[in-house]
Amino acid sequence: MTDSGSNTFQLVLMPSGRRGAVARGTNLLDASRSLGVDLESICGGRQTCGKCQVIVEEGQFAKHALTSVADHLTPIGDVERAYLEKNGIAGRRLACAAEVTGDLLVTVPEESQARKQIIAKAATERAIEVHPAVRLVYVETEAATLGDHRGDWERLQQAAAEQWKLENLTIDLRTLRGLQTSLRRREAYLANGRHGLSLAVWREREVIRVEPGYAEGAYGLAVDVGSTTVVAHLCDLRTGAVLATEAAMNPQVRYGEDLMSRVSYGMTEPQGVDRMHRAVIRTIQDLAEKAAASIGRPAEAILDVVLVGNTVMQHLFLGIDPVELGGAPFAPASSSPYDLKARDLGLAFHPAARLHVLPCIAGHVGADHVAVLLAEAPHQRDEMSLVIDVGTNAEISLGNREEVLCASSPTGPAFEGAQITHGQRAASGAIERVRIDPETLEPRWRVIGWDDWVTAEAGPPIPEAARATGICGSGIIEVVAEMFLTGILSSDGRVQEAAARRSSRVRWNGRTGEYLLAGPRETATGSEIVVTQNDVRAIQLAKAALYAGVKLLMAHRGVRQVSRISLAGAFGSYIDPLHAMVLGMIPDCDLDRVAAVGNAAGDGARIALLSDEQRAEGERLAGWVRHVQTATEPAFQDEFVSAMAIPHASDPFPHLEDILASRPSDEKAAPRERRRAKPVGSRGQHGG
Amino acid sequence: MTDSGSNTFQLVLMPSGRRGAVARGTNLLDASRSLGVDLESICGGRQTCGKCQVIVEEGQFAKHALTSVADHLTPIGDVERAYLEKNGIAGRRLACAAEVTGDLLVTVPEESQARKQIIAKAATERAIEVHPAVRLVYVETEAATLGDHRGDWERLQQAAAEQWKLENLTIDLRTLRGLQTSLRRREAYLANGRHGLSLAVWREREVIRVEPGYAEGAYGLAVDVGSTTVVAHLCDLRTGAVLATEAAMNPQVRYGEDLMSRVSYGMTEPQGVDRMHRAVIRTIQDLAEKAAASIGRPAEAILDVVLVGNTVMQHLFLGIDPVELGGAPFAPASSSPYDLKARDLGLAFHPAARLHVLPCIAGHVGADHVAVLLAEAPHQRDEMSLVIDVGTNAEISLGNREEVLCASSPTGPAFEGAQITHGQRAASGAIERVRIDPETLEPRWRVIGWDDWVTAEAGPPIPEAARATGICGSGIIEVVAEMFLTGILSSDGRVQEAAARRSSRVRWNGRTGEYLLAGPRETATGSEIVVTQNDVRAIQLAKAALYAGVKLLMAHRGVRQVSRISLAGAFGSYIDPLHAMVLGMIPDCDLDRVAAVGNAAGDGARIALLSDEQRAEGERLAGWVRHVQTATEPAFQDEFVSAMAIPHASDPFPHLEDILASRPSDEKAAPRERRRAKPVGSRGQHGG
Repeated sequence: MTDSGSNTFQLVLMPSGRRGAVARGTNLLDASRSLGVDLESICGGRQTCGKCQVIVEEGQFAKHALTSVADHLTPIGDVERAYLEKNGIAGRRLACAAEVTGDLLVTVPEESQARKQIIAKAATERAIEVHPAVRLVYVETEAATLGDHRGDWERLQQAAAEQWKLENLTIDLRTLRGLQTSLRRREAYLANGRHGLSLAVWREREVIRVEPGYAEGAYGLAVDVGSTTVVAHLCDLRTGAVLATEAAMNPQVRYGEDLMSRVSYGMTEPQGVDRMHRAVIRTIQDLAEKAAASIGRPAEAILDVVLVGNTVMQHLFLGIDPVELGGAPFAPASSSPYDLKARDLGLAFHPAARLHVLPCIAGHVGADHVAVLLAEAPHQRDEMSLVIDVGTNAEISLGNREEVLCASSPTGPAFEGAQITHGQRAASGAIERVRIDPETLEPRWRVIGWDDWVTAEAGPPIPEAARATGICGSGIIEVVAEMFLTGILSSDGRVQEAAARRSSRVRWNGRTGEYLLAGPRETATGSEIVVTQNDVRAIQLAKAALYAGVKLLMAHRGVRQVSRISLAGAFGSYIDPLHAMVLGMIPDCDLDRVAAVGNAAGDGARIALLSDEQRAEGERLAGWVRHVQTATEPAFQDEFVSAMAIPHASDPFPHLEDILASRPSDEKAAPRERRRAKPVGSRGQHGG
Repeated sequence: MTDSGSNTFQLVLMPSGRRGAVARGTNLLDASRSLGVDLESICGGRQTCGKCQVIVEEGQFAKHALTSVADHLTPIGDVERAYLEKNGIAGRRLACAAEVTGDLLVTVPEESQARKQIIAKAATERAIEVHPAVRLVYVETEAATLGDHRGDWERLQQAAAEQWKLENLTIDLRTLRGLQTSLRRREAYLANGRHGLSLAVWREREVIRVEPGYAEGAYGLAVDVGSTTVVAHLCDLRTGAVLATEAAMNPQVRYGEDLMSRVSYGMTEPQGVDRMHRAVIRTIQDLAEKAAASIGRPAEAILDVVLVGNTVMQHLFLGIDPVELGGAPFAPASSSPYDLKARDLGLAFHPAARLHVLPCIAGHVGADHVAVLLAEAPHQRDEMSLVIDVGTNAEISLGNREEVLCASSPTGPAFEGAQITHGQRAASGAIERVRIDPETLEPRWRVIGWDDWVTAEAGPPIPEAARATGICGSGIIEVVAEMFLTGILSSDGRVQEAAARRSSRVRWNGRTGEYLLAGPRETATGSEIVVTQNDVRAIQLAKAALYAGVKLLMAHRGVRQVSRISLAGAFGSYIDPLHAMVLGMIPDCDLDRVAAVGNAAGDGARIALLSDEQRAEGERLAGWVRHVQTATEPAFQDEFVSAMAIPHASDPFPHLEDILASRPSDEKAAPRERRRAKPVGSRGQHGG
């Protein structure tokens, strides 16, 4: 029996445990909101969308036992019953259809929570609230009459203001063009003579889609435009789910492998900028169409897009000449976030689809790094966090919630396989992992596209697909680190004449040496793959630049030790943290706190797609993060020189020494598996 | 001698006469503004634009005689002297370069006033302030440096905020694409290492053009899209001057002569709406290019556009299907004003050029009527004003500053020559003026393209170009009115058998009659041109609809007499007010207060182009003017029946009777010249 004389009741909402008093007759949807639990609703309380389902529990939390739950809520009416039966739902109520008439304990299933939490990704276990810039609302509007001189849009505008408190809405012209057709479609006619429409509204401000009747389905695309690879995630804007991920080579590669050659292509070639712009837009369009097709939808279903990229990529996808980024003072055209229509870039998604570009931090620290920061969130941590996105330039951030510094370090393209005698981009046949036996100096390696390790031994010829074509970035890092660990290289990076006496793999010409990684029988070309003294020097230069950048930030931040390191970027995901530390690419750290976090820029783009607050956070971060200009810092040069040594001329690596000392002898020779699963994306397209 | 001990001085500004005290050392530009006289300035006080010139007068207005003007202002410096000499200016100062050091009388020449007044047009002598949505500002921005991580846009944004108080500016992507090129152009480099740029800013909000250095020249286009004619005025956005006017046939005519046939073309023809949309956009583009070329500029110089048209035209130029306007309840897609980029409609002006569409009042009262109201401004008058825009539908407004009512009256196409046996559109050869001798019943007429009146007499054949091809709207009104005045028609519009006995020009077949206006020798076709009983009936129906609409508004407004009548529209401009009143098209009024005001919709579009306040006023008016739906008013039918008589079954026309009574007998036969000059535009393209 309920306390029918009382006019306020206790409402408890699980699993949040929020509780409070609500007045008799309060709608359960409103009551939950008043206690801070926002239930989802598209139809606005019309018992049609079914998004506000709750489970009414029995319990004894109140001043007396609940004998009948039904007594504590108004009974199920015809509309609600029809919905529940049609959808085969038992034991649940639609919160919008029930009014509180007694004490009540209610469980809100996760799918009914308005601000769903999604886990951004496994690596960092960061939860974000889904609160996209584009959301759907269902509106009922009056039919036109002779006496009402307003336009259909003005009637809809007023209905949205009354029913959803969406004031001063505007409508895109392309959307307006279809409004009257939608209004007069059969699906929009309601029994009460009114018209029902489902609107997609951008930032509570602009209507970008109008569909007749009650309609769900709002999709968004998060795109990371890398110099080498373009990755697109298609997401459900309501649930936050990633529905499809597609990746492709950046087609601009044909106009220049690295960023600077693309800048100069744009300078020297008439229409070069426009050509590169259109090429990457075409690729984004293709990826979107593929992703949408994989869930049986056209690209027109995409209502919102977030694009990130480094500053050169950002200029090019916006169609801006990146020439100023080619030389000091490296001024970008704009570092602000940018809100556009997707069609303004020539993207054929929904005709009124929106597009957001995250801000840059500086001329060499682009929106992709802001996205990495959104994903890795060093600004939300207490521990001193280092985030490195390795590429032709390394973008480095260091800090915690008190302050985050960032810098760009000119590592050059060695890590990407360029400037290395047998270097190549990550593709089938590239050696990506290397171990050298400390006793015999014999190598073992693994190539992309072949799962087994290959040992260079006399015996039957190795299969064609296992033959090496060159060495990619992660392979180079490992082979140089292994050469140092096995004594082939000295700490200053010189090939040791003594090593040549231990194995014919090490060749000495009287002045300098090289290491024979693969013989003609083991390569696809039939030529040797060697690591020369120059290759080692190139890697030393690259890793010294990266390390010096890190040290500069550590000095500015006043810290001597970092607590965690995130290696971001498709390439970063394939670097073995131990070898990176052996080489002195990264500073000393507990190896268990060094993580390859995959395509963090793509993850950050996805976060910005799903959360408008995180876009604002991105803008705040771009201004808040303090940029340190490496080029003008005299200390950078000193650090650079010291960092040329392997691992370093003076810095201690206590964690590394512990590991190397405790390493069992079989581990020393056995292949060390990657520390985490490969990130999403096709194997042939990673950046290392 | 000045009162050098004082610290405030009297400043008097002529011709406004504004005066007040200003502190010693106040810049004269700021001092004038503080007294409410806003001087023009593009360069922001840098002594380069020369827009703030003033004439320093000597005078004795202050407490003692001014012996030396020079003592009352700081002397001319080098920069100012260089500017004055280079431009051959004597006897003037640049207000921005002078500081007040004594009492002063200054004349501000009209061209230096920031909010210039322009006279909208001769007919109504209405002055508007030039205050366009797009204005130019000159900004100096810091050069990029390595230490400054902002983008060039953010530097410019800050400079505009500091130098012009333009906060939170945005920039169009197309404009951003050219920003860095402009910044690095030679013209932008300043001796102080900074960069000078001239910005075109829309509504203090968005930068739409960036030019290197100090640059003037901002143009706008005001377009009235009529069903028959499209007229475009190219204006200087700074001075308000009309630089060129171009007109062309509306190319949609080929898809349907009148509005409803275009609506049904859109309904029945796939792509019909799109075809009509593209056709009119193409015409606007052509007119703009022609107008710009006539002042030696490309269409890209156009930064702002205002478009008006009736609701069907408005739907079509926006690319919206007008199908809903084809039947009750005549709901437009939107009645709000619309702000777009010109490119969104496919117009190739400046890539970021803005475009504004005035609001509609109701389904049949479009933006063109709002423009007419802006031009005629009945809402700013005390006298009861009637504004009629005659076309297939007549839009009628009646009222004064207290209230304005409007209605649309279904006159049908008779006034445009349709449904008339020998009716035709206004074009060469059309009879546009007619007089009938009251004694002999012999006609005289004038055709478009031939300046002399033609009398149908035996004699030498009349020249080819003077021969008639048909009768256009104004000719039909005159011939029917003259037929009534000469007794050929009775008051109920029937051809009189008695008249047939007076002249063979009137033919009687025993049941009904007709009037022979031109014989085979006087027409280009060699056939007769006659006015039949059916033609008279068609004109009676059209004029009765118009008059009934007016009477309905008069009844709603509670007035029995109007004080002034404006006949708007290209067609309206050719109607002779006397004949219109004889016919009973318009209510009784002092004929001197009946004016043909030309293309008032085009004038209103121009006003909205030149004044952002007038755009806001247009939006206010669209909501404020009370729309009366003629179709649902029972009184409309009664008024319509009474208005079928010529001039009317019961309404008195005292002014008309006075005129007809006092008309000298020679005037009765002599051609009565039009009351005002023809409006701008090619003669062959007017609507009558």
